[in-house]
Amino acid sequence: MFITGIGRTKFGILDKSLPEMLYEAMLKTLQDSPLTIEDIDAVIVSNFLAGPTTGQLHLGSLVTSLLPGTYLTAFRVEAACASGGTAVYMAGSLLRDFENILVLGGEKLNGLMNKKIYKNIAMAGDLLRDQKEGLIFPAQYALIAAKYLKKFGLPSKELSLVSAKNYFNASKNPLAHFNFRDLTPDAICSSPDICHPLKLFDCCPISDGAAGLIVSRNRLSKRDIEILGRGAGTDAISLSHRKDFTGFCAARTAARRAYDVAGIEPADIDLAEVHDCFSIAEVIAMEDLGFCKKGQGMDLIRSGETSMSGRIPVNTDGGLLADGHPMGATGIAQICEIVTQLRGDAGERQVSHPEIGLSHNVGGVGGTAVVHVMRRCT
Amino acid sequence: MFITGIGRTKFGILDKSLPEMLYEAMLKTLQDSPLTIEDIDAVIVSNFLAGPTTGQLHLGSLVTSLLPGTYLTAFRVEAACASGGTAVYMAGSLLRDFENILVLGGEKLNGLMNKKIYKNIAMAGDLLRDQKEGLIFPAQYALIAAKYLKKFGLPSKELSLVSAKNYFNASKNPLAHFNFRDLTPDAICSSPDICHPLKLFDCCPISDGAAGLIVSRNRLSKRDIEILGRGAGTDAISLSHRKDFTGFCAARTAARRAYDVAGIEPADIDLAEVHDCFSIAEVIAMEDLGFCKKGQGMDLIRSGETSMSGRIPVNTDGGLLADGHPMGATGIAQICEIVTQLRGDAGERQVSHPEIGLSHNVGGVGGTAVVHVMRRCT
Repeated sequence: MFITGIGRTKFGILDKSLPEMLYEAMLKTLQDSPLTIEDIDAVIVSNFLAGPTTGQLHLGSLVTSLLPGTYLTAFRVEAACASGGTAVYMAGSLLRDFENILVLGGEKLNGLMNKKIYKNIAMAGDLLRDQKEGLIFPAQYALIAAKYLKKFGLPSKELSLVSAKNYFNASKNPLAHFNFRDLTPDAICSSPDICHPLKLFDCCPISDGAAGLIVSRNRLSKRDIEILGRGAGTDAISLSHRKDFTGFCAARTAARRAYDVAGIEPADIDLAEVHDCFSIAEVIAMEDLGFCKKGQGMDLIRSGETSMSGRIPVNTDGGLLADGHPMGATGIAQICEIVTQLRGDAGERQVSHPEIGLSHNVGGVGGTAVVHVMRRCT
Repeated sequence: MFITGIGRTKFGILDKSLPEMLYEAMLKTLQDSPLTIEDIDAVIVSNFLAGPTTGQLHLGSLVTSLLPGTYLTAFRVEAACASGGTAVYMAGSLLRDFENILVLGGEKLNGLMNKKIYKNIAMAGDLLRDQKEGLIFPAQYALIAAKYLKKFGLPSKELSLVSAKNYFNASKNPLAHFNFRDLTPDAICSSPDICHPLKLFDCCPISDGAAGLIVSRNRLSKRDIEILGRGAGTDAISLSHRKDFTGFCAARTAARRAYDVAGIEPADIDLAEVHDCFSIAEVIAMEDLGFCKKGQGMDLIRSGETSMSGRIPVNTDGGLLADGHPMGATGIAQICEIVTQLRGDAGERQVSHPEIGLSHNVGGVGGTAVVHVMRRCT
C-alpha cells in the first residue's frame, strides 16, 4: 500500500471552523496527489472532540457534504489522541474494498464558547477511576515522569533537552504552532510548573488544525511512499490497571507488529515522528520503539543522535510539543512529515537521505498506540 | 465473510453503565460462538454519544480494558445512528488484516445527570444550518413525513400501520424495549402529537442497550451466516442541501452496492430489518431498498406483505420503534435479528424458512446509510 498524497493546514490558534480546516487539508492533499476527487472511493475522518466541544458529530456525512453528489462510503474513527494514526491504519485495511482512500483528520479547540477543554480532553482517560479523581493528562504524565526519573536516577531538568530539540525543529517548519527560535534548556527549566516535574514547555499546546493523506492500493508516481508495516495495540485505559508506569505495552505491541510485517529491525529506521504530548513521552517512546534499551532513552537524546543531524532524527517537524497537537490531525500529520522527509521535500529541516521512517501515535496514557513504517520507493 | 456469533442485552431503560452493557453483550456473543476470546484478533466499538453524554471517549481502549493482557487492535467508529452498521461494514474490510473481529456497540442515555439528551442527539445533524434552527430529529422527520404524505396524497393516520405492526412484533421479542401486546392503529393515532404529523408512537424511544457480533474470514460452524453483499453511502448532512425529501440517496446507493456485490435483486430478499426511527422512515425504506416502486411503500405495508406472516416480513424484532434504539447498538442488533431468523432460532416470531435477509441502518436524516445482505449457509 502506498501514500499517494499529503496535505495539512498550519497548526495553532486558528480563526477557522473544523469543516473549513478539513476542507483546506482535503484540497491540499488532492493538489499534492496525481488523483482527483473522482478517483477517491472512500473517506475516513479522524476526530476526537468535535461532539463535546463543538456540538457536531456524524463527521463522515459532514465531510461528504463538502463533496456534493459523490455519495462516498465514509467513516469517522476516534481513538483519543491516536485518532489520526488509527484512521490511517484502518485505511490500510479498507484497501480490501476500495482502491484509493482519503484520510482526513482535524480538531477545533480554541476560541469556542465551550470552556471545558481540559475536562473534554480528560475523556481520553478512564471516567470512573482517573477522570473523577482529577487525573487530567498533565497529572497523569507527571506521575509517569516522576516514576521514570526516580527509577533511572535522572534529574528532572534533563527533560528540557527534548523540548529544546523539538522547538528548534519547529522553527524550521513554517506550518508549526510555535516558532521560538532560541528556546534554551535553561529557559524551559525556568518556565512555570504545570504539574511537577513537568514545566510549561514540557507540555504540548492546545492546537487547532487539520491534515490529510491518501492511501492507495497501487503505486501511482515516483513520489509515492510505501507503507511497509503497521501495528496497533491497546492497553487498559486506566493507569490504576497498569503494572509499569515507565513504558507503554500498547506501543511495544504496535511496534513489534509493524517491524514484523515490514521485516525490519529498529536499527533500520532512519527517522521517526513520535508522540511527544509531554517531553517524558518522547523519552519513553525511544525505548518502546527499540531505538535504545530500557532506561537509556535520555542518554540517546542527550547524545544528539535524535537531533536533525543525528543518526536517527526524531520529530523533525517539532513534534506535538512545538508543531502542535490538534488530536484528530496529529497522527496524520506525523505521517505527512515522514512522507515529506522521505521525498526529500523538507527544505530547511531536511535530513540526509532517509530511506525508512516511522510514526508512533499514542492515545490516552498509552491506552492505544499505532505505529507505521514507511519506505521511499526506489 | 461470515457472522460466527451474536449477542445482545435487553433494550430499554436499564440500570447499567455503558461498560457493563458492552461486557454483557460481549459475553453473550462469545457464548454464542465456537470461538473464545483468545481467537479474537481485533475489536471494533460502535457508539454515538458516550463523549457528550457520559464524559467517556477512547472506547477502544476502554473495551480492551475488559480483556486484560490481550493488547488487541481496537477501533471506535461513529456515524450517528448508523454507527452499528458502519462498524460491521468496517469489520468486513478489516478481514484483510484479521481473521476474527469482535464488533460491539452500545449506548447509555437514560438516568444520567446530563439532561441534554435531545441536544446531544441533534449532533447527528448539521450544526450550522439545522441544529441551530431548532431542527431536532422529530422535527426533521416530521418535515419528511409531511412532504411524503402530501406528494402521494395519503392521510397521516396511515403511518400508524407501521407502528402497530412493529409493536406487535416486539411483543414476541423478550429483549425489546416495549411489550404492549394490543397497541391498535386507533390508539396510535390518538396518542399525543410530537411534531405534526408524527404522534408519540410514530417515534422511537430513547433506549439503553448493547449488542455484539463476530465477523470471521472463514466459516466455522453450521450456524454461521454468510455476508453476501454490503454497501455504505453518504449524503449531505443538512436537509437544506437535499433536492428530494421523500427518499434517501445514501440508502439507495448503499442498497445498490449491496445487491450488486451479492448478485441478487430486491425480490430475492426474504426478510428485512430497516431503520424505522420514525414510522415514515420505514415507508421510505421500502422504496429506497427497491421492495416496491416510489410512492408505493404505504401500499406494501397496508397489504400485510411486511407483517410477520407476509411475503417479506420487516422488523420482526419490533424495529427501532418498539425493540428500541440505543444508537451504537442498533445496526448490530438488526443484524443479530437477521442471523437469528436465518438460523431458525427466533421462537414465537420466527418467519417461515427465510434464506436471504437484509439490514438497513441510517444515520442522521439519511446522511449515512449501510446495507448488509446475509444468507443462510446450506
